[in-house]
Formats: sequence, C-alpha cells, structure tokens
Amino acid sequence: MISRLIHIDHTLDESLQHQIRRALVEGILVGSFALGSKLPSSRLLAKQLEVSRNTVVLVYQALLDEGFIVSRERSGIYVSEEISQGRVQQFDSSLAIQPKTTNNAHRFKGALATTNATASPANWRQFTYPFIDGKFDSSLYPVSQWREATNRANATSEIYQWSALHGEDDPMLLEQIRTKILPRRGIQASSDEILITVGTQQALFLTSQLFVDKSVTVAIEEPGYPEMRELLQQHGAQLVHQPVDDKGLVVDDRLNGCDIIYTTPSHQTPTSVTMSMTRRDELLQKAHDQDMLIIEDDFEFESNFLGQPHPALRSLDNDNRVIYISCLSKVLASGVQIAFIVAEPEVIAELKKLRKMMVRNPPLNNQRAVAYFLSLGFYDAYMMQLHKTFFDRWLTLREALNTYLPNCIDTGPIQGGTAYWITGPEQLDGEYLREKAAELGILIEPVKRYFASDNYPENCFRMGVTSIPQDKIRAGVSKLAELIRQLTDEFEEKLTNAKGRLLTEEALKQVLPGARLQCQMVYGVPCIIELLGDGTMLGRTGGKDKETDRGRWWIENGMYYRQWDLWGYGETKGFYVIMDDDQMKWFDRHYCFVRQLELKGY
Amino acid sequence: MISRLIHIDHTLDESLQHQIRRALVEGILVGSFALGSKLPSSRLLAKQLEVSRNTVVLVYQALLDEGFIVSRERSGIYVSEEISQGRVQQFDSSLAIQPKTTNNAHRFKGALATTNATASPANWRQFTYPFIDGKFDSSLYPVSQWREATNRANATSEIYQWSALHGEDDPMLLEQIRTKILPRRGIQASSDEILITVGTQQALFLTSQLFVDKSVTVAIEEPGYPEMRELLQQHGAQLVHQPVDDKGLVVDDRLNGCDIIYTTPSHQTPTSVTMSMTRRDELLQKAHDQDMLIIEDDFEFESNFLGQPHPALRSLDNDNRVIYISCLSKVLASGVQIAFIVAEPEVIAELKKLRKMMVRNPPLNNQRAVAYFLSLGFYDAYMMQLHKTFFDRWLTLREALNTYLPNCIDTGPIQGGTAYWITGPEQLDGEYLREKAAELGILIEPVKRYFASDNYPENCFRMGVTSIPQDKIRAGVSKLAELIRQLTDEFEEKLTNAKGRLLTEEALKQVLPGARLQCQMVYGVPCIIELLGDGTMLGRTGGKDKETDRGRWWIENGMYYRQWDLWGYGETKGFYVIMDDDQMKWFDRHYCFVRQLELKGY
Repeated sequence: MISRLIHIDHTLDESLQHQIRRALVEGILVGSFALGSKLPSSRLLAKQLEVSRNTVVLVYQALLDEGFIVSRERSGIYVSEEISQGRVQQFDSSLAIQPKTTNNAHRFKGALATTNATASPANWRQFTYPFIDGKFDSSLYPVSQWREATNRANATSEIYQWSALHGEDDPMLLEQIRTKILPRRGIQASSDEILITVGTQQALFLTSQLFVDKSVTVAIEEPGYPEMRELLQQHGAQLVHQPVDDKGLVVDDRLNGCDIIYTTPSHQTPTSVTMSMTRRDELLQKAHDQDMLIIEDDFEFESNFLGQPHPALRSLDNDNRVIYISCLSKVLASGVQIAFIVAEPEVIAELKKLRKMMVRNPPLNNQRAVAYFLSLGFYDAYMMQLHKTFFDRWLTLREALNTYLPNCIDTGPIQGGTAYWITGPEQLDGEYLREKAAELGILIEPVKRYFASDNYPENCFRMGVTSIPQDKIRAGVSKLAELIRQLTDEFEEKLTNAKGRLLTEEALKQVLPGARLQCQMVYGVPCIIELLGDGTMLGRTGGKDKETDRGRWWIENGMYYRQWDLWGYGETKGFYVIMDDDQMKWFDRHYCFVRQLELKGY
Repeated sequence: MISRLIHIDHTLDESLQHQIRRALVEGILVGSFALGSKLPSSRLLAKQLEVSRNTVVLVYQALLDEGFIVSRERSGIYVSEEISQGRVQQFDSSLAIQPKTTNNAHRFKGALATTNATASPANWRQFTYPFIDGKFDSSLYPVSQWREATNRANATSEIYQWSALHGEDDPMLLEQIRTKILPRRGIQASSDEILITVGTQQALFLTSQLFVDKSVTVAIEEPGYPEMRELLQQHGAQLVHQPVDDKGLVVDDRLNGCDIIYTTPSHQTPTSVTMSMTRRDELLQKAHDQDMLIIEDDFEFESNFLGQPHPALRSLDNDNRVIYISCLSKVLASGVQIAFIVAEPEVIAELKKLRKMMVRNPPLNNQRAVAYFLSLGFYDAYMMQLHKTFFDRWLTLREALNTYLPNCIDTGPIQGGTAYWITGPEQLDGEYLREKAAELGILIEPVKRYFASDNYPENCFRMGVTSIPQDKIRAGVSKLAELIRQLTDEFEEKLTNAKGRLLTEEALKQVLPGARLQCQMVYGVPCIIELLGDGTMLGRTGGKDKETDRGRWWIENGMYYRQWDLWGYGETKGFYVIMDDDQMKWFDRHYCFVRQLELKGY
C-alpha cells in the first residue's frame, strides 16, 4: 500500500505538502512506484495519511503539471510512463533525495588498508587481444552439462537431501572430490579431511584466520600471489619474501624461523614455474627440520601441458605439515565458487566452525550440482576439452612469441600453466608497454602487483591464454612485437652500425651451405638448423618436446632467404647477414634486426 | 592378489555388484591397481570372491564402457593406461598412506572459543513432531519455478553477462532487490547502496568486521540471536545485554554509551515480538541523541500475519544510522544463500572490499538465478503461498496451544513470525521437557542459548512452524500438553483439594444460565463467553483478530458440559465446577484440571 511508503513527521519543519511530495517523487524516481501504476485517489490518500484532502490535491496537481503523474478520465491517477532517466535534471533541485546527514567512515574499525587492486581492468572484454590470465572465457562454459547437473540437483528428492545439511557439506560432493579429483594429485583423503569453501579466496581466508596472527612469521613467494599477501598482512603476519627460481620457491636458510610457508608449486603464481621434485623434497625436509606448516595452493594443477604433473606436496607429506587448497577448473569455479581444503580432521573441524560463523555453508544447491557434474563424468570430459583448448592456445602463443620476438624476450622453460611470465629487453618499461599496447587493443598484465618489494624487474610482463580466442593470438603478438621494437629501437644494434662484417652474396655462398646453426627459442630450449647444400634445411628444437621442421633456403640480392614448411607460419623471410666472430647476425629489412647465435660446422 | 583388495560385506544393503565396482574403481583411482596391469578373468575373480560369475561380468562390462579398463584380444583385461592423463604417476607402495605424525592444534591462532551450538539436532527430520524454527521444509521449495529461473541464468548469453562480474554483484539482481523487495519495507535505495552476501551470516560477519573491535560497545537484545552474540564476542566487542518487552527492545538509559545497537525489530529473535512504531521512533531518537549506529536485522519480515508490517527502521532514518540486513525467504535462502545489506555507498564500498578478501563474490550463477526468480514474478507468488502456509500453521498451532494448554502457558500477544515463545507453568523445567518430549517424537526448542546470562527463565521454550506439516500440529500439541500436565501435576490444584466450593447439579442450574464468563487466551487476548438460558452459548475473543463461535452447553451428572461448533475442535467436554470468590474453576475428568477466571453477570 502506497501510504506505507510515505511517513509523515509532524515534528519536522518541512511542510506536510512537501513531505508527501518528496516521498512520492523519490518513490517514482527510484522505482518504488512502478511506472504506469495507479495511485490512490486524493481522498483515500489523505485519509490514510491523516492529512487534509486539500494537501494531497495540491501535491497531485503539482506532480501532474510536472509530468510525474497523469490523470486518466473516469479512471484515476497513474505514475507517468514517460518518465525516463533524462527527465531527472528538470526537477526542482530541492526535491532531490535529501543527503543523509551522517557519514559512518569514522566508525570503521576493520577497514582494509589495501586497495584490492585486480590483475586486469573491468572492461577487459572490450579489448581485441585480451592476453590476461584467470578471467573467465564464457565460451568455454559447459552449458548443457552444467544445466543437466543443475537440474538433477534441483529435483525434489535431491532438495530434500541437501536441504537438511545446515552447516555441513554435501556428502555426495565430498565423495566425488575424494574419489575423482584428489587421486589425480596422488592425494588420499577421507571425507572428514575435506572442507568445501566459497571459492579459493575463502579457503585462503579461513586458513589465515585459523593459523595466522601477529606472532606468526609466514614465508611467501616473491613474486607471489598478491591477494594472499594482503590476507596475511590483514592478519598481522610477519612476512618473509622468499625468491623463486626456475625450480620454484627457493629453499634455503632464509626460511629458518618461519612458522608457515605459503607456496603455489603446480604452476607458481605468477611465473608459472613448476616446482621440481627435488625442490619439493627439499621443502618438505625443511618444513620437517624447522617444524613448519606448508599451505599448498594448488592452483591450475590441471593445466600441466608438458610431461606428467608432479604429485602434490600433500601427497608426499607423511607428517600433516601440508594444508592443501584447490578448486574446480576456474572456468567453472569462478561463477559457481566451489573450492576445497584438505587437511587433518582436527584442522577441518576447526575451519568448519570458522566457516559457519562467516557464511553458514557454501550454497548447497551448487554443491549438489557440482557433485552431479563430477559423478556424471562431465568434469573429466570437460577437463580434457579445456586442457586441449588451453594447450592449443598456450602453444600458439609460444610459437607467436618465438616467431615475432626471437632473441628479444624470454619466457623461461615452463611446463604449463595458463600464462607466460615474459622478460623483455632490458630497457623496456613494462608499465609503459601496457599503456601503449592498450591503445592498440592489446591487454597484457604488468607485474608490479606481484612483488612486495619496490625493486621489481620493470622489463617484465605477463601474457595469459584463458580469455583470448585462439585465432587472435598471432595477430596480437605480431602487433605487440612491432610495438616493443619501436619502444626499444634506440637501444638495438642496427645494420648500419653493427659490430662485425657484412657478408656479400659471394661470402654467403661460401658460408651457408652445410652450416649447422644453433639458436635459442624464447622458451629456453635450443634449436639446431642445418642448411643443406641442396637448398633444403632441417630444424630441430631440443628440450622435452622435440619438434622438427623442414624448409628451403637460398641467396638472392646479397641476402639470405628462408621459408619453413610450418615454422614462422611458412612465410618467406630475407636477411642481411653480419658475421661477428662465431655469431651470425641476421638483419630484417623492415624492422631493426633479428639476430641469432650460431655455430658453424660440427 | 587383487581379490584381497576387494572386501565383500554380505551384511551391507549395497549390492555385491556395486561393492565390487566401487572397490575396483577406488583401487584404480588411488593406484592400488597399477595402470596397465592385468586384472584376473571374470571367472577367476568370481571364484576368489565367492560370487556368481555374472556379477563380475556385469561390473567389468560397465568399467569397460567407462574406459577404466580395456580388453585385449586373446590376452585379457587390463587397467587402462589412459586414466593417467593429467594424473600423478604411481609411486611404489612404500609411499602409500602412513599415519601422519604431527597434529597442528597447537598452531591454532584464530580458533573459536564458542561451541557453534545450533538450535536443533541434526536429525530433526526423524521426529514426528518437529516444532522447530528456521529449518528448511523442502516440501515448500518452489521446485519448478526455481528450475526455470536457474535454466534462464544458465543460458549461454546470460553466462556471458554474469561471468564478467568478478568482485561485483549482478546488476540485474541489485535492480530486482531495489524495486521488488525493498519497497515492501518502505526502503528506497540505489544500486550502490546494496551489497549481496552469502547468506545473512556473512552480512552480519562483514558488518561486525567493519564496525566492531575491542574499543566498541554493542547493545544486543537479551534474549537475542546467539550467532550474533558469538560474532561480536569474537570481534572483542563489549556487550550490553538489553532486555526485550512486548514492544520490542527496551529503549532506556542503559543504551547510553553504546556505539552500536543490534536489533531484530520485525519479529524479535527469539520472542517473535514486533517492535511498535513508538518504540521505533524512540530507538531512532536515542541513536540520534547518543550518536549510535543501528544494525537492523530484518529477519522474517515477510511473516507478519496480523496487521500491516511496520516500516523498517532504515526507512524511517534520515541520518544514515541504520545498516539494514535482510535476505530472501529462508526456505529459498538457506540453500541458495543470498542475503543483502543496505547502507550508504561509502559503507557498501568498504564492505565490498572486505567481502572480496573473504569470498571474492557470492556465486554469480545463483545471483542471476535469483534475479530471474524475482523478475519473472515467481518470488511474489511464492511469498504469497508461503505466507498462507505459515499463517495456517501458525494459527493452527495457536489454536492447539489454546485448546490443550489453557491457563497453563502464555505465548504473548505477537503479530507474526514463525515461532512462539512459550512461558510454561512456573515449576516447569524447559530443558527436561525437551528431553521427555523428544522421547515422544516431539521436538521443541529450549531457550538457554538465546540468553547471555545464566539467569534465564527455565520454564520457557519455543515452538516453530517452518518445518512441521499442518496435519501434525494438533496431535503434537495434544501429546505435549499431556506431558506438561504430568510434569507439573504435583504443583497443580486438584479437584480434591481445591480452594472453594464444588457446585452441585442444583447450584450449577442456578449459576450458569445467563452467565457471562471471561477468560484469557494463551496468546494474551481476552475471551468472553455467554451461556444463554436456551442452552446455546456465544464466544467472542478480543484483540486485533476478532473471532466468534457458537455452541451448546448443558448440565449432566453434576457436571457442566459444553460443545463449540468450531472451537476446541467441536469436541464435547465436561467439567466439575468449583466456585472460589468470583473465579469459576473447571476440572476435567481425565487430567488434573482446567481452570478459568470468570465474571458473573455484567
């Protein structure tokens, strides 16, 4: 009833007419009174509000004049349907919603000091080339399978079951995680060793809440996951920022004296480095020797592309030193928000109490839907599809980086993950590159937020594959490469001032046939190229994933030309060649240069 | 030998086939059976397990179909090697689970001191008469409407929209809450004044986290919501336990000096008392005078059965002193976990940062599904249906209490809510009653947990209507009444020792015709009964909800008999009558007594 929305206060200075008018206008503007809805007659409203009818008549007349309401003959008074957002400015400013007089900021006790900055802008979808990590590519959502799982979970008999679970987790989901997800990581757990959480963030929050206060020293990776650093700071922890190398978190005496180590061994956030088995053993030994707890954030364990995934730290731990945190594939999880913690029953029981105080329980309809998604086999099929999609994108990005930015960047020899940590030319300013790239519709991720220290490598940036369609990757990298060359042009060796000797056509004819050249891929593995005397060539990359290609080469107008069957997109490219000791430097016609370190002969 | 890893238990309900299947799948998944290893033939395994061969054949066939095992011609059955994709490789058996040696309890820093005790036992569904409040009656779940809303939210185009909302709430849901739910309570709010939370508990947690620390004094209702008391204690608040009367939270000088008042004005938890309008004004005035913040927990605002609901405190507040917390109907909300906070934009922004640190965002699929549930009009229809169901149960319970426990208990004059706060006979021990009632399949709720003080009324208990079917209410109350009479029998007046004069048949004939009797209903309103000279009678209850009934009365064998058309289930009852001054006491034949205070004449 409309009169309930209008509160007359006779003690106010404001006239009754004005009070009624303001309440009506506010109601119409904010939508409490639906457009086109009928208002009570002036007689009725006056009676309900216990004011004189004339007061209401005057209010209505003014609103009619201003077009807020319309009168229809023999029918009554209605909220005008013509009111649109554009009309708001025409109103008498005294009628605007009154500013409430108190501000409560001075009452904040637990406000966050940090900024909650995120990895990528909210409008990332407006970029043509979104090379960001962890955003949700909705085209990969398993729509029909998720719908089937949801519908099963929403059946009457199912609702009867899960609705009885106040404060407890769905036993069906626990069983599915226990038997379908954890064994992939070598982890055996009983149901009372698993807790469901509202996403990974809640798992980290609960774990911090239980184990961290001002008396606790925590080692975290540097660079590392900024949200966890914020959480630990919020809980007052003393932090040790431990470096990461190409085998993962460095294990050395700087860890001595820590109570807890937080690590992301599967694919280190943000470098994507997989912790080696040796390093895992060292870490567990250190934890044992120093009586430490390890929080293992097993982010993206599904996206191991090269070689077998390593067992989780939790699976190698006979000592209850590892609290294991993981989630469903993030494509599914970021909407549905289901993650989980594996730990000893006593820890799970305590975390459950904390969780209950914070959210009662993670939504039970989603728990049961995910349980069906797993039990019907959709998850396994979906993971295979997702693995293939991300692997394709990941390889495509790697190939593009190698083609367009050879000898210029370095991604490190990673095995998987969904993002590359890229070290650019020494003089590159990653933040400036991000800005300039954004103007071209290319979104890359700066790395500053991953470092606690201000002393971070400014020439680094990240490129991810979770959100960019496969067919955009090459063009995006090509444009980005051009930009990077422009930005670093002044620092680069040019054909005109390069050290060494420019090879003439004759010299090329002597040097090239039968040459065996060696170079380095941007992802850290060597590549051997053999230029055969018959004008064919063979290429072979080393590293774990052997790849070969064949092609043609020739000499023309004093330049060396080559065309691979597959590599370099099968394009023909020509170079001027400068010999500098045993290095052969190739200079592209359009851009400044391409150089390759090579070995002549055997 | 593989058969040793499969334990058949003939005492289980689970079929043999299922047991074998489960053991094989688990063995494969946890690696007890190496990938690629040969399994025994179905004939051999059947023999080893002492089951029929057909049982094993069926299990093998299903596992073949699902890809767990493969069959090689003329060779046998093997564990599939494909299962290992994306999985950790098998380790030698020395790595199998060993008992973990460390316990981490000594590391707990943020463990809860409290017990997280809940209002009702986990097995409440096994009781025939579950008179508890707030549990989920799954038969009331709007299955088909929720399914339709869910399916809309899971459409590809919808997923594209909501999946982009990292850290933000679904604007569609905010708009629906703003225009469909808040106006019911007289609240006008813009979208940046609303925050979605994972259930009411998270709303309370976030608010406590932002506004409460050791320096803050908070007034809470006594009796009051124990979960909020725990939360405040956990945040170190100093507490003022403010009493509640029949108009709601008492507003007096004990509130002076408090920084925050937490209150449940719609239907006070646990007494169900609705805060009067006068009290609301007094509370807001007090908050203004003392510069306090009010946290309004608008629990169950939909279940106002008698009279119009009062406007929310937030709607009466021009001063930004009220943080408003509410949720969807709890039948829906307890599974889906959607609640919301309304406050000034600066407070919402800060709460959002805190929320992001705890759970990133409430599940977005549920946000969009609820948005559709609202926009399609399902919520309004559902609320009407739920209102009717609970109102019917609520009236039925009231009538049963009034019929079976007159002059024995008192529920207070409440207007709505879904539970009665019942004051029993002075000598009743509520906790003992709960125990004894449970033995009869009757679940009532003891009240101790609602009090901070140990000095609580032991003769009180609660009975709710959210979980008990309509047709169980009368029988449950009847049994409970019998139990209460047994437990308090020794303290009650008996026919044999009652003060006053037993009326003979002759005396009854003189006293009763034309008598006008007055008594009190258990819910606090008066009832007038007129015994007409022609053997008919009229009954009329006072209070807000006037009700009348007609009936017959007569005298037989020295007893007064009556039969209402509707009241007392139309049953005939006879009483011996004792006059004590102007009181007429009626004594039932079977039980000890029924007494009624009455007035003779006009």
